[in-house]
Amino acid sequence: MPKIDIDAVPKQLGSGYPAPFDRPCSDRIRQRLGNAGGLSAFGVNLMRLPPGGWSSQRHWHSHEDEFVVVLEGELTLVEDGGETLLRAGECAAFPGNSGNGHHLVNRLGETAVYLEIGSRDPADVTTCSDIDMMSTNADGRFVHKDGSPY
Amino acid sequence: MPKIDIDAVPKQLGSGYPAPFDRPCSDRIRQRLGNAGGLSAFGVNLMRLPPGGWSSQRHWHSHEDEFVVVLEGELTLVEDGGETLLRAGECAAFPGNSGNGHHLVNRLGETAVYLEIGSRDPADVTTCSDIDMMSTNADGRFVHKDGSPY
Repeated sequence: MPKIDIDAVPKQLGSGYPAPFDRPCSDRIRQRLGNAGGLSAFGVNLMRLPPGGWSSQRHWHSHEDEFVVVLEGELTLVEDGGETLLRAGECAAFPGNSGNGHHLVNRLGETAVYLEIGSRDPADVTTCSDIDMMSTNADGRFVHKDGSPY
Repeated sequence: MPKIDIDAVPKQLGSGYPAPFDRPCSDRIRQRLGNAGGLSAFGVNLMRLPPGGWSSQRHWHSHEDEFVVVLEGELTLVEDGGETLLRAGECAAFPGNSGNGHHLVNRLGETAVYLEIGSRDPADVTTCSDIDMMSTNADGRFVHKDGSPY
């Protein structure tokens, strides 16, 4: 059945970031819809971000493309160039290797719902813009930018 | 600017199918949002389907994954196993090489809006389920299943 039974897809609360970097994302809920539908070429995650929550630490990918579409509420996109409001129905794209970190912040009083779509590349490196943290798809752990563990 | 200026993205009317197979898709409007945002790993298209319209001829892909999310209106998903209604906020996934053709039909009196996301694989072959038509990414043309041109 190609239709995704969204209620049946597991809800993952929070992030895998080491403390204290996990705190702004601690109430984030992720449902891996693409995986649930048997997709392998890219991921599609349904995300719920309560008031005050962040989508992630601000970051960019070396190899992977990302795309987000807001389904409910409003989110503030933060990047090197400043801030941009994304309303329901609005979209943003993040080509790999931009060097310009991004994340989404919910500054409204209601939960925001969005889809995040990302390609999958085993060579990918995620680099955080504002903190000393990175990760590689090859390893999967979040480490200091010199490679030392938290 | 990662935010997509949707109004500025070109609107492509209809399909590239040979007649008469283009007719059910003649009022379909596609905007290539992912391309507009500089993405290369996958495509994200914003689609508008007026009443009576089809998303495409019913088809499946040999190598590419597809995902759709309905943003406005309702669409009927048609596949080998029957029909499934997709309402706004609902999603469906189509892994490559399923052999089970799909398309979306708008049976309501209002335009439906949805996003279609697809991976890109140069080896991909699109096979139509209900008509003698196929295409390859290597060639790009729509031909008979024996390879002869329309």
